[in-house]
Amino acid sequence: MQDQDQHIASAYDRDLEAIQAMILKMGGLVEAAILDGARSLESRDVELAEKVRRGDRAIDEIEERVNEEAARVIAIRAPVSRDLRVILSVLKLAASLERVGDYAKNIAKRTTVLVEMRPITGADATLRRMAREVEIMLKDALDAFTQRDVDLAMDVIHRDHDIDQMYNALFREFLTYMMEDPRSITACMHLHFVAKNIERMGDLVTNMAEQVVYIATGSMPDDTRPKADKTAYATEAE
Amino acid sequence: MQDQDQHIASAYDRDLEAIQAMILKMGGLVEAAILDGARSLESRDVELAEKVRRGDRAIDEIEERVNEEAARVIAIRAPVSRDLRVILSVLKLAASLERVGDYAKNIAKRTTVLVEMRPITGADATLRRMAREVEIMLKDALDAFTQRDVDLAMDVIHRDHDIDQMYNALFREFLTYMMEDPRSITACMHLHFVAKNIERMGDLVTNMAEQVVYIATGSMPDDTRPKADKTAYATEAE
Repeated sequence: MQDQDQHIASAYDRDLEAIQAMILKMGGLVEAAILDGARSLESRDVELAEKVRRGDRAIDEIEERVNEEAARVIAIRAPVSRDLRVILSVLKLAASLERVGDYAKNIAKRTTVLVEMRPITGADATLRRMAREVEIMLKDALDAFTQRDVDLAMDVIHRDHDIDQMYNALFREFLTYMMEDPRSITACMHLHFVAKNIERMGDLVTNMAEQVVYIATGSMPDDTRPKADKTAYATEAE
Repeated sequence: MQDQDQHIASAYDRDLEAIQAMILKMGGLVEAAILDGARSLESRDVELAEKVRRGDRAIDEIEERVNEEAARVIAIRAPVSRDLRVILSVLKLAASLERVGDYAKNIAKRTTVLVEMRPITGADATLRRMAREVEIMLKDALDAFTQRDVDLAMDVIHRDHDIDQMYNALFREFLTYMMEDPRSITACMHLHFVAKNIERMGDLVTNMAEQVVYIATGSMPDDTRPKADKTAYATEAE
């Protein structure tokens, strides 16, 4: 499997596995934060929102430990070529996870603001469905990482298009609500941010799936994924 | 200066300088993208916006080269402890710059959308001033990086508070416009995104300044900077 001395290869593999275990733990916390964040928003549950906000610290701490551990492994194992690239890719996975966690925290923060405003019927449930889709994408991206499963990673990449479509539909819905009833403007502005946060989470999970393809194959996937941004902006411009 | 053999230390220093030069080049392009993006928005200059959108590719390419070069340096020089941490920090600087460049591109994209809508008097000029402030912060963060100037980096970190205040003022301004005239809602939604993009750029430049402090001193700055998010959300909730 490795061109190196078997003993060294094994020590490196064990180190890498330890880092991967941290990524999976981090991923589990981020998945929970996405679901809890969306749930706190839908049910205007300030306590749950507070839990998500507090929980973000644990996610950040794991990222720091991944960074430290990766630096330690690079320093003592001096991996080259493919091994080094895998470690650097894993650092990117951790950085993306940390940002997804931040977005979940932002959603929870909006809950504490929105609890004072009258609800926008329908939008909350759509946002929760959208968050649920992203959480499944993240779960699959992590599974693809563990299994080095390129097909599953590519599937995640393609599903990002659905998230973008849900976002575009919501954007138009919010415009309609605001024009019909100016009293809903402030709440809609906040909910629109939540929608945008979830759409960005989808982009980050897509980046993670691309890194997984890179880790498994040594090259990034063909640039054939639907250009999310273009769609979004074109639709918003209508 | 280094505990290692002088010859090796010099080779490493030269490699590091080459990477730093790439960061500075990348930073220059990102600075220009911020200013051009904001200028294209204010003057509804679709051609300039198109230039910013096309120019983002060059920024992404330098980031890729920084990643490759850092991997090469780690592989052949096997730096440890402080040296390794500096290289990993520089990778983070490059990643932050790439994201600031993306936000500038997003602003340029909004220009092509907003050109079809009637202008919101005053907001465009405020947005350009805000973008200009962030560009100066970035310039100073890059200078602080080159000079390993902790004081300048700390100054950048503190200035992020001003950006957050400008964002909060704009948020309330947009709410007022939308409530007064529902026909302005769509344009305000887009301009609000631009404001949020600039505010996020400020956060990223602040992260960069924190990395500079880390590179120069070996530890992150005390967690005393004003909590941007809390302010923003508290004000938005009013």
